[in-house]
Amino acid sequence: MLITTRQAGSQTADFADVRATNLAVVLRHVRVNAPCSRADIAASTGLNKATVSSLVAELIERRLLRETGLVEHRIGRPATMIELDGAPYAAVGVEIAADHLSLEAVDLAGERVLSWRRAFPALTVTPPRAVASMVALIRRAVARIAADGRQVLGLTIGVPGLVDSSGVVTFALSLGWRELDLRGEVLRGLRDPAYPVLVDNDASLAALAEYRYGSFAGSPNLVYLTGEAGVGAGIIADGRPLRGARGYAGEIGHLPLDGSTAACRCGRQGCVEAAVGIPALIRQLNPDVDREGPVTDFEPEIARIVERAAAQDRVALAALQRAGSQLGHAAATLASLVNPEVIILGGYYVPLAPWLLPPAEAELFARVVAPDGGGSLLAASTLGHGAAALGGTARILDAVDSGQLPRLAG
Amino acid sequence: MLITTRQAGSQTADFADVRATNLAVVLRHVRVNAPCSRADIAASTGLNKATVSSLVAELIERRLLRETGLVEHRIGRPATMIELDGAPYAAVGVEIAADHLSLEAVDLAGERVLSWRRAFPALTVTPPRAVASMVALIRRAVARIAADGRQVLGLTIGVPGLVDSSGVVTFALSLGWRELDLRGEVLRGLRDPAYPVLVDNDASLAALAEYRYGSFAGSPNLVYLTGEAGVGAGIIADGRPLRGARGYAGEIGHLPLDGSTAACRCGRQGCVEAAVGIPALIRQLNPDVDREGPVTDFEPEIARIVERAAAQDRVALAALQRAGSQLGHAAATLASLVNPEVIILGGYYVPLAPWLLPPAEAELFARVVAPDGGGSLLAASTLGHGAAALGGTARILDAVDSGQLPRLAG
Repeated sequence: MLITTRQAGSQTADFADVRATNLAVVLRHVRVNAPCSRADIAASTGLNKATVSSLVAELIERRLLRETGLVEHRIGRPATMIELDGAPYAAVGVEIAADHLSLEAVDLAGERVLSWRRAFPALTVTPPRAVASMVALIRRAVARIAADGRQVLGLTIGVPGLVDSSGVVTFALSLGWRELDLRGEVLRGLRDPAYPVLVDNDASLAALAEYRYGSFAGSPNLVYLTGEAGVGAGIIADGRPLRGARGYAGEIGHLPLDGSTAACRCGRQGCVEAAVGIPALIRQLNPDVDREGPVTDFEPEIARIVERAAAQDRVALAALQRAGSQLGHAAATLASLVNPEVIILGGYYVPLAPWLLPPAEAELFARVVAPDGGGSLLAASTLGHGAAALGGTARILDAVDSGQLPRLAG
Repeated sequence: MLITTRQAGSQTADFADVRATNLAVVLRHVRVNAPCSRADIAASTGLNKATVSSLVAELIERRLLRETGLVEHRIGRPATMIELDGAPYAAVGVEIAADHLSLEAVDLAGERVLSWRRAFPALTVTPPRAVASMVALIRRAVARIAADGRQVLGLTIGVPGLVDSSGVVTFALSLGWRELDLRGEVLRGLRDPAYPVLVDNDASLAALAEYRYGSFAGSPNLVYLTGEAGVGAGIIADGRPLRGARGYAGEIGHLPLDGSTAACRCGRQGCVEAAVGIPALIRQLNPDVDREGPVTDFEPEIARIVERAAAQDRVALAALQRAGSQLGHAAATLASLVNPEVIILGGYYVPLAPWLLPPAEAELFARVVAPDGGGSLLAASTLGHGAAALGGTARILDAVDSGQLPRLAG
């Protein structure tokens, strides 16, 4: 039995991994093809029937698969049909942004079981208070999930900033965090839970969510642009997250935009965030917003902008036109360097998309040397504000699908 | 027997592919670990000994492996040692640039068997003449390879421009080519050879060469920046080439540089190529160069610049300082979006590297928000001018290593 891993320069895995990998192969096959019989699985995977029976038995014991009760009668003998048993498990994703906390939970089949969002002024509280609020939210969700008879498969937290592979937030400008061991703090807050806890960049997670659940699900090359206090890019390249050497890929927020001189909190000028980050747009368009303190709740401010644009307010339309062009410049850089099928505008860009997309697309096409913008489309996300939190659940389900099966509940 | 492919969402392969994949696993194992015994291979790959013996026998018959003649005496019985049999095969790579043609050939072990370079004014000849010159060069190389008793494994041609997956050059500004079916023309010129012919972007191929043969070989995240008439980026991400939806990833040449207004042949202003492409540098530094016609031989012009810089000529040093900063801006964009371990300057940037690298590194560190430039180093290539041609050979060897074995010679 030979397994080639998905790493570069495929290497063979230990025998110990073979069964886990085969369990995952069967699980993925059923996820895509259910209902199906053991014989179908054997025929499609090339595994022999005795092996399939043993794998299916273990997956049923682990409550990842179940028999449907349906029996298909074929030539020979009847075949019991099998499907995914999503119900006993839930994957949890949490997103912290400058103005809100989101939490999403899905079952093994990817069906939403919780979808929470609350306003949260992250910039005006200390990191320990922010972590405490997040932990309290997670505890409530986990209690609810347990009460529903589900086991938590894992938890992923999305943060708008640089996150290293150990879950330390190196730098999150829009939250004012530096060198915060978020994974460690959350593990302590949850008192070392039995399920795995991960921390990742919000844009990277949102891209995973688009790849698994979004309108362009399965597009092997896609980019998600966050429209929150910061602007970040999550990149899926050839069906896999693009992370880079230290996990810092997709940091588009502080690239300079042609002709912009807007002062950025990072100390530079003309950065994407300073020009078209959501707080920058709010200050440009709603000049009555407090110019001194931070804007801590974006939603009503964005609603006001949408109202003005819908009412054909010329100042609002001109500002959105300009912002759209600038987003198009940022998108053109991504199209030229990464050449995705689609660049998806997320977060608060979604309600503004009717006004942002046309000038953004024109700018993208004008700037990219390859014909038709290199084939890169621009589109608005359909996943809503919880995209990064949903992406957190996608990361957990991806791990299960690649063989990291949940422990058997005691 | 189960094979997971390296594609996203691993799928099982056909039984027909299993043997090819296993042959490739054995070949790769021997490439890395030779000399080794059949028992070593079985122990490391998890394949059973009878299977390994049969696979090794086929690889010896195909002359990809050979017995070394050495026997290792262990407890039990003596083991015959096996190694790669590089000699019977050669992979060929060709690069066309604005001022030269390069051809490299390596054997299966990656040892160079040919390394040719000739001045060639591609911009002043028609595409059919350029293709004819290339084909003539390839024919001579193939004849030489055959005379040495080797079989050609495959041929890859590198072009400084956009190349689609069928080998059509969509747009190559520095050659003046548009919609040229280069693969088709070369196949006709070579009268449909028995070996595969591929066409790819020069920067993408050079990055493959760095990944396989260069000073940073094996670094899973690396970028190669071409320093020829054009400037392109070849990206290796997580050990695999980053190609994008249409194969147009890495097009950095026409991104705008802060503060540059240099007119570009593409019709835009301030493009990377217009500011720090090699012809632009030559015109800035050697003002006696014909301002009207194209510069068709860069090598002596670059040698003059190196001489002046080495002699501490202030004008030359200031110009190189500025060019280095501008390259640093381009590198910062790559570091922010792709976050490689290293960005390797290639082509004519190599002789200029002592003057370009320090200001480029300073600019990279100043522009990237992540600490220490996100960990991205800058370095000069050690592969010389044939990097894209060498990358052509790497692409062929990569295909063999992933199971596309050569046909048995008749």
